[in-house]
Amino acid sequence: MKRLGVMLSGRGSNFEAIADRIAEGKLAAEIAVVISNRPDAPGLEAARRRGLKAVSLPSRGLDREEYDRQTIAELKANNVDFVILAGYMRLLSATFIREFPLRVLNIHPSLLPAFTGLDAQHQAFDYGVRFSGCTVHFVDEHLDNGPIILQAAVPVECDDTAETLSARILQQEHRIYSEAIGIVVNGKFRVEGRRVVLS
Amino acid sequence: MKRLGVMLSGRGSNFEAIADRIAEGKLAAEIAVVISNRPDAPGLEAARRRGLKAVSLPSRGLDREEYDRQTIAELKANNVDFVILAGYMRLLSATFIREFPLRVLNIHPSLLPAFTGLDAQHQAFDYGVRFSGCTVHFVDEHLDNGPIILQAAVPVECDDTAETLSARILQQEHRIYSEAIGIVVNGKFRVEGRRVVLS
Repeated sequence: MKRLGVMLSGRGSNFEAIADRIAEGKLAAEIAVVISNRPDAPGLEAARRRGLKAVSLPSRGLDREEYDRQTIAELKANNVDFVILAGYMRLLSATFIREFPLRVLNIHPSLLPAFTGLDAQHQAFDYGVRFSGCTVHFVDEHLDNGPIILQAAVPVECDDTAETLSARILQQEHRIYSEAIGIVVNGKFRVEGRRVVLS
Repeated sequence: MKRLGVMLSGRGSNFEAIADRIAEGKLAAEIAVVISNRPDAPGLEAARRRGLKAVSLPSRGLDREEYDRQTIAELKANNVDFVILAGYMRLLSATFIREFPLRVLNIHPSLLPAFTGLDAQHQAFDYGVRFSGCTVHFVDEHLDNGPIILQAAVPVECDDTAETLSARILQQEHRIYSEAIGIVVNGKFRVEGRRVVLS
Protein backbone atom coordinates (compact mmCIF):
# COMPACT_ATOMS: atom_id res chain seq x y z
CA MET A 1 0.00 0.00 0.00
CA LYS A 2 1.56 3.29 -1.09
CA ARG A 3 1.90 5.94 1.57
CA LEU A 4 0.75 9.49 0.88
CA GLY A 5 1.97 12.63 2.58
CA VAL A 6 -0.61 15.37 2.24
CA MET A 7 0.48 19.02 2.46
CA LEU A 8 -2.08 21.77 2.89
CA SER A 9 -2.50 25.35 4.06
CA GLY A 10 -6.28 25.72 4.34
CA ARG A 11 -9.49 23.79 4.70
CA GLY A 12 -8.19 20.88 2.65
CA SER A 13 -11.40 19.94 0.87
CA ASN A 14 -9.38 18.00 -1.69
CA PHE A 15 -7.62 16.18 1.14
CA GLU A 16 -11.01 15.23 2.60
CA ALA A 17 -12.26 13.98 -0.77
CA ILE A 18 -9.14 11.79 -1.10
CA ALA A 19 -9.54 10.48 2.46
CA ASP A 20 -13.19 9.66 1.64
CA ARG A 21 -12.20 7.69 -1.47
CA ILE A 22 -9.66 5.73 0.54
CA ALA A 23 -12.24 5.05 3.27
CA GLU A 24 -14.71 3.86 0.61
CA GLY A 25 -12.09 1.46 -0.75
CA LYS A 26 -12.00 3.26 -4.09
CA LEU A 27 -8.38 4.37 -3.83
CA ALA A 28 -5.79 1.85 -2.66
CA ALA A 29 -3.36 4.03 -0.72
CA GLU A 30 -2.98 5.26 2.82
CA ILE A 31 -2.46 8.72 4.22
CA ALA A 32 0.69 8.53 6.33
CA VAL A 33 0.77 12.13 7.45
CA VAL A 34 -0.95 15.46 6.89
CA ILE A 35 1.37 18.47 7.18
CA SER A 36 0.30 22.10 7.29
CA ASN A 37 2.52 25.15 7.13
CA ARG A 38 -0.29 27.07 8.83
CA PRO A 39 -1.00 25.96 12.40
CA ASP A 40 -4.62 27.12 12.14
CA ALA A 41 -5.44 25.34 8.87
CA PRO A 42 -8.86 23.67 9.27
CA GLY A 43 -7.49 20.76 7.22
CA LEU A 44 -5.25 19.81 10.16
CA GLU A 45 -8.24 19.55 12.47
CA ALA A 46 -10.08 17.51 9.82
CA ALA A 47 -7.11 15.11 9.71
CA ARG A 48 -7.16 14.73 13.49
CA ARG A 49 -10.91 14.05 13.45
CA ARG A 50 -10.26 11.25 10.97
CA GLY A 51 -7.61 9.76 13.25
CA LEU A 52 -4.80 10.61 10.85
CA LYS A 53 -1.40 11.89 11.88
CA ALA A 54 -1.52 15.68 11.62
CA VAL A 55 1.64 17.78 11.87
CA SER A 56 1.75 21.55 12.15
CA LEU A 57 5.07 22.79 10.81
CA PRO A 58 4.95 26.61 10.74
CA SER A 59 6.75 28.17 7.80
CA ARG A 60 6.69 31.72 9.07
CA GLY A 61 10.14 33.33 9.10
CA LEU A 62 11.85 30.44 7.32
CA ASP A 63 13.25 30.65 3.80
CA ARG A 64 12.16 28.09 1.27
CA GLU A 65 15.18 25.77 1.42
CA GLU A 66 15.25 25.83 5.20
CA TYR A 67 11.54 25.10 5.48
CA ASP A 68 11.62 22.42 2.80
CA ARG A 69 14.38 20.58 4.67
CA GLN A 70 11.97 20.30 7.59
CA THR A 71 9.07 19.04 5.49
CA ILE A 72 11.31 16.57 3.64
CA ALA A 73 12.50 15.21 6.99
CA GLU A 74 8.93 14.88 8.25
CA LEU A 75 7.78 13.15 5.06
CA LYS A 76 10.73 10.76 5.11
CA ALA A 77 10.24 9.99 8.80
CA ASN A 78 6.75 8.82 7.80
CA ASN A 79 8.01 6.74 4.86
CA VAL A 80 5.96 8.69 2.36
CA ASP A 81 5.98 7.44 -1.25
CA PHE A 82 4.01 10.30 -2.81
CA VAL A 83 3.43 13.89 -1.78
CA ILE A 84 -0.06 15.25 -2.40
CA LEU A 85 -0.42 19.03 -2.37
CA ALA A 86 -3.97 19.97 -1.43
CA GLY A 87 -4.18 23.73 -1.27
CA TYR A 88 -0.56 24.08 -0.13
CA MET A 89 0.19 27.74 -0.68
CA ARG A 90 3.97 27.61 -1.11
CA LEU A 91 6.28 26.94 -4.03
CA LEU A 92 8.52 23.93 -3.50
CA SER A 93 12.29 24.25 -3.81
CA ALA A 94 14.28 22.32 -6.37
CA THR A 95 15.72 20.37 -3.44
CA PHE A 96 12.25 19.16 -2.50
CA ILE A 97 11.42 18.17 -6.08
CA ARG A 98 14.67 16.23 -6.39
CA GLU A 99 13.81 14.25 -3.26
CA PHE A 100 10.52 13.09 -4.79
CA PRO A 101 10.96 12.95 -8.57
CA LEU A 102 7.57 12.49 -10.32
CA ARG A 103 6.17 11.86 -6.86
CA VAL A 104 4.71 15.23 -5.99
CA LEU A 105 1.19 15.96 -7.25
CA ASN A 106 -0.81 19.16 -7.22
CA ILE A 107 -4.30 20.17 -8.26
CA HIS A 108 -5.03 23.56 -9.76
CA PRO A 109 -8.51 24.99 -10.42
CA SER A 110 -8.05 25.85 -14.11
CA LEU A 111 -7.33 24.14 -17.38
CA LEU A 112 -3.59 24.73 -17.27
CA PRO A 113 -1.59 26.31 -18.82
CA ALA A 114 -4.34 28.97 -18.64
CA PHE A 115 -4.79 30.94 -15.41
CA THR A 116 -1.89 29.99 -13.19
CA GLY A 117 -1.51 31.37 -9.69
CA LEU A 118 -4.03 32.62 -7.22
CA ASP A 119 -7.78 32.89 -7.79
CA ALA A 120 -7.67 30.93 -11.01
CA GLN A 121 -11.46 30.56 -11.05
CA HIS A 122 -11.94 34.31 -10.81
CA GLN A 123 -9.29 34.90 -13.44
CA ALA A 124 -11.11 32.53 -15.81
CA PHE A 125 -14.49 34.05 -15.06
CA ASP A 126 -13.26 37.61 -15.63
CA TYR A 127 -11.49 36.58 -18.84
CA GLY A 128 -14.82 35.34 -20.17
CA VAL A 129 -13.89 31.79 -21.13
CA ARG A 130 -16.71 29.37 -21.99
CA PHE A 131 -14.87 26.41 -20.45
CA SER A 132 -12.66 26.14 -17.45
CA GLY A 133 -11.83 23.21 -15.22
CA CYS A 134 -9.07 21.74 -13.13
CA THR A 135 -5.74 20.05 -13.58
CA VAL A 136 -3.81 17.42 -11.62
CA HIS A 137 -0.14 17.63 -12.50
CA PHE A 138 3.28 16.57 -11.35
CA VAL A 139 4.97 19.41 -9.54
CA ASP A 140 8.23 20.96 -10.57
CA GLU A 141 9.90 24.06 -9.18
CA HIS A 142 7.83 26.39 -11.37
CA LEU A 143 4.36 27.64 -10.51
CA ASP A 144 1.54 25.38 -11.76
CA ASN A 145 3.83 23.78 -14.27
CA GLY A 146 4.89 20.17 -14.72
CA PRO A 147 3.39 17.28 -16.70
CA ILE A 148 -0.41 16.99 -16.61
CA ILE A 149 -1.90 13.75 -15.31
CA LEU A 150 -5.62 14.50 -15.61
CA GLN A 151 -7.86 17.46 -16.36
CA ALA A 152 -11.60 17.98 -16.21
CA ALA A 153 -13.39 20.62 -18.27
CA VAL A 154 -16.56 22.35 -17.10
CA PRO A 155 -18.72 24.87 -18.96
CA VAL A 156 -19.07 28.45 -17.81
CA GLU A 157 -22.78 29.30 -18.03
CA CYS A 158 -24.07 32.78 -18.80
CA ASP A 159 -25.77 33.05 -15.40
CA ASP A 160 -22.67 31.91 -13.53
CA THR A 161 -20.82 33.97 -10.99
CA ALA A 162 -17.21 33.30 -10.10
CA GLU A 163 -18.59 31.47 -7.06
CA THR A 164 -20.95 29.11 -8.91
CA LEU A 165 -18.16 28.40 -11.37
CA SER A 166 -15.74 27.66 -8.50
CA ALA A 167 -18.24 25.23 -6.99
CA ARG A 168 -18.64 23.40 -10.32
CA ILE A 169 -14.88 23.13 -10.69
CA LEU A 170 -14.45 21.94 -7.09
CA GLN A 171 -16.80 19.00 -7.71
CA GLN A 172 -14.51 17.89 -10.52
CA GLU A 173 -11.40 18.47 -8.40
CA HIS A 174 -12.75 16.04 -5.84
CA ARG A 175 -13.28 13.46 -8.57
CA ILE A 176 -10.08 13.70 -10.61
CA TYR A 177 -7.54 14.11 -7.82
CA SER A 178 -8.21 10.63 -6.43
CA GLU A 179 -8.35 9.21 -9.94
CA ALA A 180 -4.96 10.76 -10.76
CA ILE A 181 -3.46 9.48 -7.51
CA GLY A 182 -4.69 6.00 -8.41
CA ILE A 183 -2.95 6.22 -11.79
CA VAL A 184 0.31 7.38 -10.27
CA VAL A 185 0.52 5.03 -7.27
CA ASN A 186 -0.17 2.12 -9.61
CA GLY A 187 2.51 3.31 -12.08
CA LYS A 188 -0.01 3.24 -14.92
CA PHE A 189 1.68 5.94 -16.97
CA ARG A 190 4.86 6.97 -18.73
CA VAL A 191 6.16 10.45 -19.45
CA GLU A 192 7.13 11.40 -23.03
CA GLY A 193 8.55 14.89 -23.24
CA ARG A 194 6.08 16.62 -20.98
CA ARG A 195 3.14 14.43 -22.01
CA VAL A 196 1.86 11.88 -19.51
CA VAL A 197 0.71 8.83 -21.47
CA LEU A 198 -1.65 6.59 -19.51
CA SER A 199 -1.38 2.82 -19.80
CA MET B 1 -29.68 40.25 -44.14
CA LYS B 2 -26.28 41.04 -42.65
CA ARG B 3 -23.39 41.06 -45.07
CA LEU B 4 -20.19 39.19 -44.22
CA GLY B 5 -16.72 39.91 -45.54
CA VAL B 6 -14.55 36.81 -45.25
CA MET B 7 -10.78 37.18 -45.09
CA LEU B 8 -8.52 34.18 -45.54
CA SER B 9 -4.99 33.15 -46.47
CA GLY B 10 -5.33 29.41 -47.09
CA ARG B 11 -7.78 26.66 -47.86
CA GLY B 12 -10.58 28.35 -45.95
CA SER B 13 -12.26 25.27 -44.54
CA ASN B 14 -14.02 27.41 -41.96
CA PHE B 15 -15.20 29.71 -44.75
CA GLU B 16 -16.64 26.70 -46.56
CA ALA B 17 -18.41 25.47 -43.44
CA ILE B 18 -20.00 28.91 -43.00
CA ALA B 19 -21.02 29.05 -46.67
CA ASP B 20 -22.59 25.59 -46.26
CA ARG B 21 -24.62 26.69 -43.21
CA ILE B 22 -25.86 29.71 -45.13
CA ALA B 23 -26.77 27.54 -48.14
CA GLU B 24 -28.64 25.15 -45.80
CA GLY B 25 -30.62 28.08 -44.40
CA LYS B 26 -29.15 27.57 -40.93
CA LEU B 27 -27.35 30.91 -40.78
CA ALA B 28 -29.22 34.02 -41.90
CA ALA B 29 -26.46 36.11 -43.44
CA GLU B 30 -24.85 36.52 -46.82
CA ILE B 31 -21.25 36.46 -47.89
CA ALA B 32 -20.65 39.74 -49.71
CA VAL B 33 -17.00 39.19 -50.56
CA VAL B 34 -14.11 36.82 -49.88
CA ILE B 35 -10.71 38.50 -49.73
CA SER B 36 -7.34 36.77 -49.66
CA ASN B 37 -3.95 38.34 -49.09
CA ARG B 38 -2.46 35.35 -50.89
CA PRO B 39 -3.35 35.13 -54.57
CA ASP B 40 -2.91 31.34 -54.56
CA ALA B 41 -5.11 30.64 -51.52
CA PRO B 42 -7.35 27.65 -52.36
CA GLY B 43 -10.11 29.41 -50.44
CA LEU B 44 -10.37 32.01 -53.22
CA GLU B 45 -10.98 29.31 -55.79
CA ALA B 46 -13.55 27.71 -53.49
CA ALA B 47 -15.35 31.07 -53.28
CA ARG B 48 -15.40 31.38 -57.07
CA ARG B 49 -16.78 27.87 -57.43
CA ARG B 50 -19.61 28.85 -55.12
CA GLY B 51 -20.36 31.90 -57.25
CA LEU B 52 -19.21 34.31 -54.54
CA LYS B 53 -17.23 37.45 -55.16
CA ALA B 54 -13.56 36.58 -54.63
CA VAL B 55 -10.90 39.27 -54.42
CA SER B 56 -7.17 38.66 -54.41
CA LEU B 57 -5.45 41.56 -52.68
CA PRO B 58 -1.74 40.69 -52.33
CA SER B 59 -0.14 41.91 -49.12
CA ARG B 60 3.44 41.26 -50.14
CA GLY B 61 5.66 44.32 -49.74
CA LEU B 62 2.98 46.43 -48.01
CA ASP B 63 3.13 47.48 -44.39
CA ARG B 64 0.19 46.72 -42.14
CA GLU B 65 -1.49 50.15 -42.21
CA GLU B 66 -1.07 50.49 -45.95
CA TYR B 67 -2.46 47.04 -46.63
CA ASP B 68 -5.31 47.43 -44.15
CA ARG B 69 -6.41 50.63 -45.89
CA GLN B 70 -6.89 48.55 -49.03
CA THR B 71 -8.85 45.81 -47.32
CA ILE B 72 -11.02 48.33 -45.44
CA ALA B 73 -11.82 50.02 -48.76
CA GLU B 74 -12.71 46.70 -50.37
CA LEU B 75 -14.90 45.65 -47.43
CA LYS B 76 -16.70 49.02 -47.41
CA ALA B 77 -17.19 48.97 -51.17
CA ASN B 78 -19.07 45.72 -50.58
CA ASN B 79 -21.15 47.13 -47.71
CA VAL B 80 -19.85 44.55 -45.28
CA ASP B 81 -21.40 44.54 -41.78
CA PHE B 82 -19.12 41.94 -40.20
CA VAL B 83 -15.62 40.74 -40.99
CA ILE B 84 -15.00 37.02 -40.61
CA LEU B 85 -11.38 35.93 -40.39
CA ALA B 86 -11.03 32.35 -41.57
CA GLY B 87 -7.38 31.42 -41.47
CA TYR B 88 -6.25 34.96 -42.22
CA MET B 89 -2.58 34.95 -41.34
CA ARG B 90 -2.03 38.63 -40.57
CA LEU B 91 -2.52 40.79 -37.52
CA LEU B 92 -5.00 43.62 -38.06
CA SER B 93 -4.01 47.22 -37.38
CA ALA B 94 -5.77 49.37 -34.79
CA THR B 95 -7.12 51.37 -37.73
CA PHE B 96 -8.87 48.29 -39.07
CA ILE B 97 -10.34 47.39 -35.67
CA ARG B 98 -11.65 50.95 -35.20
CA GLU B 99 -13.46 50.72 -38.54
CA PHE B 100 -15.35 47.61 -37.39
CA PRO B 101 -15.75 47.79 -33.62
CA LEU B 102 -17.00 44.43 -32.24
CA ARG B 103 -17.57 43.45 -35.86
CA VAL B 104 -14.46 41.42 -36.60
CA LEU B 105 -14.53 37.74 -35.62
CA ASN B 106 -11.77 35.16 -35.59
CA ILE B 107 -11.55 31.47 -34.81
CA HIS B 108 -8.50 29.98 -33.13
CA PRO B 109 -7.82 26.24 -32.67
CA SER B 110 -7.24 26.25 -28.91
CA LEU B 111 -9.07 27.06 -25.71
CA LEU B 112 -7.79 30.60 -25.44
CA PRO B 113 -5.99 32.12 -23.61
CA ALA B 114 -3.91 28.93 -23.84
CA PHE B 115 -1.76 28.36 -26.93
CA THR B 116 -1.93 31.55 -28.93
CA GLY B 117 -0.20 31.92 -32.28
CA LEU B 118 0.79 29.38 -34.86
CA ASP B 119 0.29 25.62 -34.63
CA ALA B 120 -1.90 25.86 -31.56
CA GLN B 121 -2.99 22.23 -31.90
CA HIS B 122 0.62 21.03 -31.89
CA GLN B 123 1.44 23.33 -29.00
CA ALA B 124 -1.43 21.83 -27.00
CA PHE B 125 -0.50 18.29 -27.94
CA ASP B 126 3.15 18.74 -26.99
CA TYR B 127 2.17 20.44 -23.72
CA GLY B 128 0.22 17.32 -22.81
CA VAL B 129 -3.17 18.86 -22.03
CA ARG B 130 -6.15 16.51 -21.62
CA PHE B 131 -8.56 19.00 -23.19
CA SER B 132 -8.12 21.44 -25.99
CA GLY B 133 -10.62 22.99 -28.35
CA CYS B 134 -11.36 26.12 -30.30
CA THR B 135 -12.43 29.69 -29.65
CA VAL B 136 -14.44 32.23 -31.63
CA HIS B 137 -13.63 35.72 -30.40
CA PHE B 138 -13.92 39.35 -31.31
CA VAL B 139 -10.66 40.58 -32.73
CA ASP B 140 -8.62 43.39 -31.29
CA GLU B 141 -5.16 44.52 -32.30
CA HIS B 142 -3.47 41.88 -30.13
CA LEU B 143 -2.83 38.31 -31.20
CA ASP B 144 -5.68 35.89 -30.39
CA ASN B 145 -7.03 38.26 -27.81
CA GLY B 146 -10.41 39.97 -27.57
CA PRO B 147 -13.70 38.92 -25.92
CA ILE B 148 -14.69 35.28 -26.39
CA ILE B 149 -18.02 34.54 -28.06
CA LEU B 150 -18.02 30.73 -28.05
CA GLN B 151 -15.63 27.91 -27.29
CA ALA B 152 -15.79 24.17 -27.75
CA ALA B 153 -13.74 21.73 -25.67
CA VAL B 154 -12.53 18.39 -26.99
CA PRO B 155 -10.65 15.64 -25.14
CA VAL B 156 -7.10 14.68 -26.04
CA GLU B 157 -7.00 10.88 -26.10
CA CYS B 158 -3.91 8.87 -25.20
CA ASP B 159 -3.64 7.42 -28.71
CA ASP B 160 -4.00 10.82 -30.37
CA THR B 161 -1.42 12.42 -32.56
CA ALA B 162 -1.31 16.15 -33.16
CA GLU B 163 -3.08 15.39 -36.44
CA THR B 164 -6.00 13.39 -35.00
CA LEU B 165 -6.39 16.08 -32.36
CA SER B 166 -6.40 18.79 -35.04
CA ALA B 167 -9.11 16.95 -36.95
CA ARG B 168 -11.28 16.65 -33.82
CA ILE B 169 -10.86 20.37 -33.13
CA LEU B 170 -11.62 21.30 -36.76
CA GLN B 171 -14.99 19.53 -36.58
CA GLN B 172 -15.91 21.76 -33.67
CA GLU B 173 -14.56 24.85 -35.45
CA HIS B 174 -16.96 24.19 -38.30
CA ARG B 175 -19.82 23.97 -35.82
CA ILE B 176 -19.18 26.91 -33.50
CA TYR B 177 -18.05 29.52 -36.00
CA SER B 178 -21.45 29.64 -37.71
CA GLU B 179 -23.18 29.52 -34.34
CA ALA B 180 -21.11 32.48 -33.10
CA ILE B 181 -21.77 34.45 -36.28
CA GLY B 182 -25.49 33.84 -35.77
CA ILE B 183 -25.27 35.25 -32.24
CA VAL B 184 -23.37 38.33 -33.36
CA VAL B 185 -25.35 39.23 -36.49
CA ASN B 186 -28.54 38.94 -34.46
CA GLY B 187 -27.09 41.12 -31.68
CA LYS B 188 -27.90 38.45 -29.09
CA PHE B 189 -25.14 39.45 -26.68
CA ARG B 190 -23.70 42.19 -24.55
CA VAL B 191 -20.12 42.74 -23.46
CA GLU B 192 -19.35 43.23 -19.74
CA GLY B 193 -15.68 43.93 -19.13
CA ARG B 194 -14.26 41.36 -21.47
CA ARG B 195 -17.04 38.83 -20.89
CA VAL B 196 -19.54 38.27 -23.68
CA VAL B 197 -22.91 37.57 -22.08
CA LEU B 198 -25.36 35.87 -24.40
CA SER B 199 -29.03 36.83 -24.37
